[in-house]
Amino acid sequence: MKEKEDSSIAMAEGDGEGVTLGDLKKKMADFAKERDWDQFHSPRNLLLALVGEVGELSEIFQWRGEVPRGLPGWDEKEKEHLGEELSDVLLYLVRLADVCGVDLGGAALRKMEINARKYPVQYCKGSSKKYIHYASENSGSNGSTDEL
Amino acid sequence: MKEKEDSSIAMAEGDGEGVTLGDLKKKMADFAKERDWDQFHSPRNLLLALVGEVGELSEIFQWRGEVPRGLPGWDEKEKEHLGEELSDVLLYLVRLADVCGVDLGGAALRKMEINARKYPVQYCKGSSKKYIHYASENSGSNGSTDEL
Amino acid sequence: MKEKEDSSIAMAEGDGEGVTLGDLKKKMADFAKERDWDQFHSPRNLLLALVGEVGELSEIFQWRGEVPRGLPGWDEKEKEHLGEELSDVLLYLVRLADVCGVDLGGAALRKMEINARKYPVQYCKGSSKKYIHYASENSGSNGSTDEL
Amino acid sequence: MKEKEDSSIAMAEGDGEGVTLGDLKKKMADFAKERDWDQFHSPRNLLLALVGEVGELSEIFQWRGEVPRGLPGWDEKEKEHLGEELSDVLLYLVRLADVCGVDLGGAALRKMEINARKYPVQYCKGSSKKYIHYASENSGSNGSTDEL
Repeated sequence: MKEKEDSSIAMAEGDGEGVTLGDLKKKMADFAKERDWDQFHSPRNLLLALVGEVGELSEIFQWRGEVPRGLPGWDEKEKEHLGEELSDVLLYLVRLADVCGVDLGGAALRKMEINARKYPVQYCKGSSKKYIHYASENSGSNGSTDEL
Repeated sequence: MKEKEDSSIAMAEGDGEGVTLGDLKKKMADFAKERDWDQFHSPRNLLLALVGEVGELSEIFQWRGEVPRGLPGWDEKEKEHLGEELSDVLLYLVRLADVCGVDLGGAALRKMEINARKYPVQYCKGSSKKYIHYASENSGSNGSTDEL
Repeated sequence: MKEKEDSSIAMAEGDGEGVTLGDLKKKMADFAKERDWDQFHSPRNLLLALVGEVGELSEIFQWRGEVPRGLPGWDEKEKEHLGEELSDVLLYLVRLADVCGVDLGGAALRKMEINARKYPVQYCKGSSKKYIHYASENSGSNGSTDEL
Repeated sequence: MKEKEDSSIAMAEGDGEGVTLGDLKKKMADFAKERDWDQFHSPRNLLLALVGEVGELSEIFQWRGEVPRGLPGWDEKEKEHLGEELSDVLLYLVRLADVCGVDLGGAALRKMEINARKYPVQYCKGSSKKYIHYASENSGSNGSTDEL
């Protein structure tokens, strides 16, 4: 399949722009099936595994104080470790969506359209207040961050 | 724009299998740029936003006890809400990888290859012990879950 | 105060009922000061460290499916590991509150009074609907879990 | 009851230094029992509720960039909201330990002794390398943060 070929190429080149959520979903499903590990992949087991990976990701950033975009000064080993932890979160997220029967790619596109309608450019541009409002709305916060 | 058209089609059909990580990365970058919100998208800000979304996702599952695969008995509104929270985690994860300069798709494919080499089928098949070992290794745990 | 004296004994006896939040706050502050580690204990550093520990805690429960109260079948080593991870979360939480200037003990008592007023026994007793409502309110959810 | 009186005083004065983990454990147990909510307080339900609260806590800090100790510039409403979210995490943590049969206070004191033995002052003082090592050890990281 064309996408599959792209994936292998992408991997070889370290360029994963063309990797689809369908690719990852299938690879994760095959990986579990081959090892007879579906028995362990219940929604809440996978959710807690995801939380564990988010913890690992947080550990990478925990003692650094503010970190600039692009991670200036990080060596290759640190960046590789970051890529692995980001991947672990992504892979469990994709797997969780799959076992829940959620079309993650479609849901993500819909969520972005909802956000785009909710926060029109002319209304929100350059406004941190609007941003915080957007952010707190978006994250289901009780809104008290509007006070910022 | 071509990608936009593809996205709308995918969305219209509710089939997001073909959505690429590159699509989501670009859409998130455009969304932030149009609103002048790049100023808020530092790595640790996005990481904490991701943690906030993981919290929202956990709230959906928190009082239900064990939840079977496929979510039998969940109504459409619940499933839609789940799709939105899964999407919020995915979108912040994609954005975090982008501002860190990490090729998330490539890193995910590499991580799956590492896992495949590390846990050969013939060695791991149907073994929960190996699975737990795999899981604890994979999640960077101190390994004491090997006692399970 | 008798309970205070019991702290050291408590440790020996494994009875920590009398341990106060003030005890833990002071011990954590002294620990950091003696090692000149205050420089690393900024609020967001500690928050990310807390998230890391919550991840470790989740790993203990991640592959077990539902776990009954009292953890029947867990061996001593597993329970000890659980105690350590619960402690790591507690200690970073106490430290985070301290560097933020929050009186955690007082805040916790106030929060329990708020909850008690908000959910009078006669109104909530035995009602999972009220419970879910309580839970979603309490957790600042966007309320869609009310649909449960 | 003596403890209740102490609690109210502590609360009235906004001084919770003397609040014990036993106080909070008992109050949480009574609160659940009075409302017949023990049925919802399984270990993994409480763990996911804890993760939800950690998400709420993270939302408070997510868009602020680095935050100095003492939270200069935060208004009373923001600090009160922070106190409530810190409390929600603490209360679910205490409740989780209780339903797991873990003596949280004793475990916390033991964990601090372990840390003190593991990181002697003369060895660790003022050393961020040792600190990172301590931190990564402590948090069960795979140690690659030693590269920092």
